[in-house]
Amino acid sequence: MTDAPVRIVTLTTDFGTGSGYVAELKGRLLQARTSFTLVDITHDVPPHDLSEAAWLVARACPAFPDGSLHLVVVDPGVGTARRIVWARTGGHEYLAPDNGVLSGVLAAAGTVEARVVAMPPGASATFHGRDVIAPVAASRVDGVSPDEIGPAAGRLELLPAPLPRETPVGVEGEVVHVDAFGNLLTNLPATLLPRLVASGRLLVGDREVSRVVRTYGDASPGTAVALVGSQGVIEAAVVQGRADATLAARVGTRVLLP
Amino acid sequence: MTDAPVRIVTLTTDFGTGSGYVAELKGRLLQARTSFTLVDITHDVPPHDLSEAAWLVARACPAFPDGSLHLVVVDPGVGTARRIVWARTGGHEYLAPDNGVLSGVLAAAGTVEARVVAMPPGASATFHGRDVIAPVAASRVDGVSPDEIGPAAGRLELLPAPLPRETPVGVEGEVVHVDAFGNLLTNLPATLLPRLVASGRLLVGDREVSRVVRTYGDASPGTAVALVGSQGVIEAAVVQGRADATLAARVGTRVLLP
Amino acid sequence: MTDAPVRIVTLTTDFGTGSGYVAELKGRLLQARTSFTLVDITHDVPPHDLSEAAWLVARACPAFPDGSLHLVVVDPGVGTARRIVWARTGGHEYLAPDNGVLSGVLAAAGTVEARVVAMPPGASATFHGRDVIAPVAASRVDGVSPDEIGPAAGRLELLPAPLPRETPVGVEGEVVHVDAFGNLLTNLPATLLPRLVASGRLLVGDREVSRVVRTYGDASPGTAVALVGSQGVIEAAVVQGRADATLAARVGTRVLLP
Repeated sequence: MTDAPVRIVTLTTDFGTGSGYVAELKGRLLQARTSFTLVDITHDVPPHDLSEAAWLVARACPAFPDGSLHLVVVDPGVGTARRIVWARTGGHEYLAPDNGVLSGVLAAAGTVEARVVAMPPGASATFHGRDVIAPVAASRVDGVSPDEIGPAAGRLELLPAPLPRETPVGVEGEVVHVDAFGNLLTNLPATLLPRLVASGRLLVGDREVSRVVRTYGDASPGTAVALVGSQGVIEAAVVQGRADATLAARVGTRVLLP
Repeated sequence: MTDAPVRIVTLTTDFGTGSGYVAELKGRLLQARTSFTLVDITHDVPPHDLSEAAWLVARACPAFPDGSLHLVVVDPGVGTARRIVWARTGGHEYLAPDNGVLSGVLAAAGTVEARVVAMPPGASATFHGRDVIAPVAASRVDGVSPDEIGPAAGRLELLPAPLPRETPVGVEGEVVHVDAFGNLLTNLPATLLPRLVASGRLLVGDREVSRVVRTYGDASPGTAVALVGSQGVIEAAVVQGRADATLAARVGTRVLLP
Repeated sequence: MTDAPVRIVTLTTDFGTGSGYVAELKGRLLQARTSFTLVDITHDVPPHDLSEAAWLVARACPAFPDGSLHLVVVDPGVGTARRIVWARTGGHEYLAPDNGVLSGVLAAAGTVEARVVAMPPGASATFHGRDVIAPVAASRVDGVSPDEIGPAAGRLELLPAPLPRETPVGVEGEVVHVDAFGNLLTNLPATLLPRLVASGRLLVGDREVSRVVRTYGDASPGTAVALVGSQGVIEAAVVQGRADATLAARVGTRVLLP
């Protein structure tokens, strides 16, 4: 792993865009002396929602070119004992509180190199994104080596991951994300597609989806369908409608593949 | 028309910002070897709303410098028979599904040059923005010629456009967009301003707006007004209020200029 | 004060992202011949809310590197007699309507240099962000001197600022901003922290917050707490909850530090 300077920095937060918090992060980052590309992933993570953040980070961040640096600031424990860490895994760098928001990328990667970020003098107790994470990110952009960030971090925090499990009536999983279309993304992996096709149905809560398709437009508007979508998992959707409303489902709703 | 490399790429989608979809698009685009400016137009097109997307694209995209490339990913038919096309018209380039989202810019332009984008091996059936459109955009940034994108596309899909019409009681049109202020933008063009001034009123649904102004602040807060706004069409507005709520109107509401 | 070309331009508006207005601003800015970094602060200022805009600008803009140019387009009086001004204060440049949106930064700075922007021929009456402010911003990026913008502006408009005041029962202030977490930011400055600690409580409307902490995570989820947060003022928060809902408070709600 080389220590090339960082050229792309992404931001994932639960700050919303109505306050100055995102601007304070960006302003500090742009004090780097070297030019770089700054990309908003989202500032609309539901407040304090670590598992949603972990899910999103695992899907969004690896899509960027290798060597990108991803700032993840979803940090309900800001200013408490939890650490701020820098981690490199799967060819990408991350700066985040050590509270599980990196669980998804850590689970997917073979190895991880991690350091504890030293607390700078004068840091506030309530905004480590601005006062701790952004300065380290700017220094990485300017070519400071990861070795200088702080001591090796050892084991990083992982969130309990809801895994699908075999039951006498089928594979049981749950809805792990609802997208802007109301599509219900589950933790049932794409490898279960042959079984979905054979079964021809998926239970979402107490509703049955009895149409399996290759893509949304393969059924008529209003039809509830199950498919393997672009995120590599089984989804339930309603064609040109909202599956969350139609199927009365949300994150955590049980799904069953009979 | 030259084939200069693209320096500005814009994004218009209905993805929202709470999922990783936009990030996946951006990540793929940033794999271009050449640096470029990436601009978000919006990710808040109402899901699957082709006519809203077409309206927005026609107003937003031509505002950028000539030679910009605009990605429009509002694609309810993703993975079905509809084509992905590259088009150049009015000095701008577009990459979009051939489902009518380019109707507005095509209607405004004299000529169009268009190509069908070849489906790359391994493309998903559900996310052509990431798997088909973004790679072509990155290649244009890197200087690949439009000729290499695919065969000539022939005629592109156009949405039916609601045109104003003369009736015995006046010019009838409709609300085609509601902005963040609740202003009601209609399909009555600015060329009707003399008639609006002469009439002194505009009917919106069954409500009458009886004050014609040059700009919002020309009447007191709370007053319903009609004017030619910045988008080149007749608008109904409520000064420092919301015309959509006050006049009980939305996209599709009939307007009449007596 | 040097007149170095501008390298960072930020945008703060109440346009929302569902219309083409932000794109029209950006498109015009990108017609600058010189490359620069374009940063969205927010487009979600509540429509026409000058005091919210002034509050946000005062916190967000100074966080950027010195010499940045900040466009603030919250402009209910567009096209009326109010002026468009360029101002330089605290090492930063601003372009905005002279309607009070710069109150916060002006109050914080010792001196200000300001010019009236000349109205270009052909400007619309309803979108000076696009037709007046953006062209001047682009010219600053291209190195045009502030002297060429227009005549000296004299005194700029200031909004009345709600100041805390001593009363027989304590220091009275008010909620001036609610962030995405529902935290209630007040106009009671951080210098009152010793008094808050001594008192051990803060009244928010008719509710009492009786726990003073250093950071949110110092109390258990659901606890209402008072603290000095990252914005340099006293805040009321509910740990991993929403203080605005729990304490039934909003911008303007009275707070009392006994």
